[in-house]
Amino acid sequence: MSNLLADLPAPAEDEVFTDLLSRPGVRIERIVSHGQSTPVDAPFDQDHDEWVLLLRGSAGLWIDGDGERALRPGDHVLIPAHRVHRVTWTAADEPTVWLAVHFG
Amino acid sequence: MSNLLADLPAPAEDEVFTDLLSRPGVRIERIVSHGQSTPVDAPFDQDHDEWVLLLRGSAGLWIDGDGERALRPGDHVLIPAHRVHRVTWTAADEPTVWLAVHFG
Repeated sequence: MSNLLADLPAPAEDEVFTDLLSRPGVRIERIVSHGQSTPVDAPFDQDHDEWVLLLRGSAGLWIDGDGERALRPGDHVLIPAHRVHRVTWTAADEPTVWLAVHFG
Repeated sequence: MSNLLADLPAPAEDEVFTDLLSRPGVRIERIVSHGQSTPVDAPFDQDHDEWVLLLRGSAGLWIDGDGERALRPGDHVLIPAHRVHRVTWTAADEPTVWLAVHFG
């Protein structure tokens, strides 16, 4: 995959995760969403910091203590380890493409 | 800076480099170009791997052994340590925005 915005997967039940690069202590991943969100009763609670950048589409991100914000292309957020969070919505009418960098 | 594509710096003589996040062994940076290129007689020769992703605009990237390619938004390239490379051109009529992840 030489372009992160081309040849996007078709809408499917699940989001599509693709590893782009891994190094000791860091992993870069592309995520493609088509309307998915994180279940309210199963938020993320990760043991590592994650930095996310929205590349295309739109999404809502709720982070414990910070509340919910709408993300548009170019928006980026650092989600510290063990900060409970969830994706509240993603665009239903177009793909939403995230870049995620996982640390540690 | 909460959005990498908003409030871009005005065209200037030099490219604008902004650190976004640093961790042991990794640094994430935004670069904004306005027509700059790397001097032919002073290509980059870095002692660490660098992963670049073009977010906006367009650019030419020459990498020793791979030749030159034109980059458009979404294109990404891993430049291994000590692989001599240079940016041959960037768009003159709009900002070109890069995300760079430096390893090690």
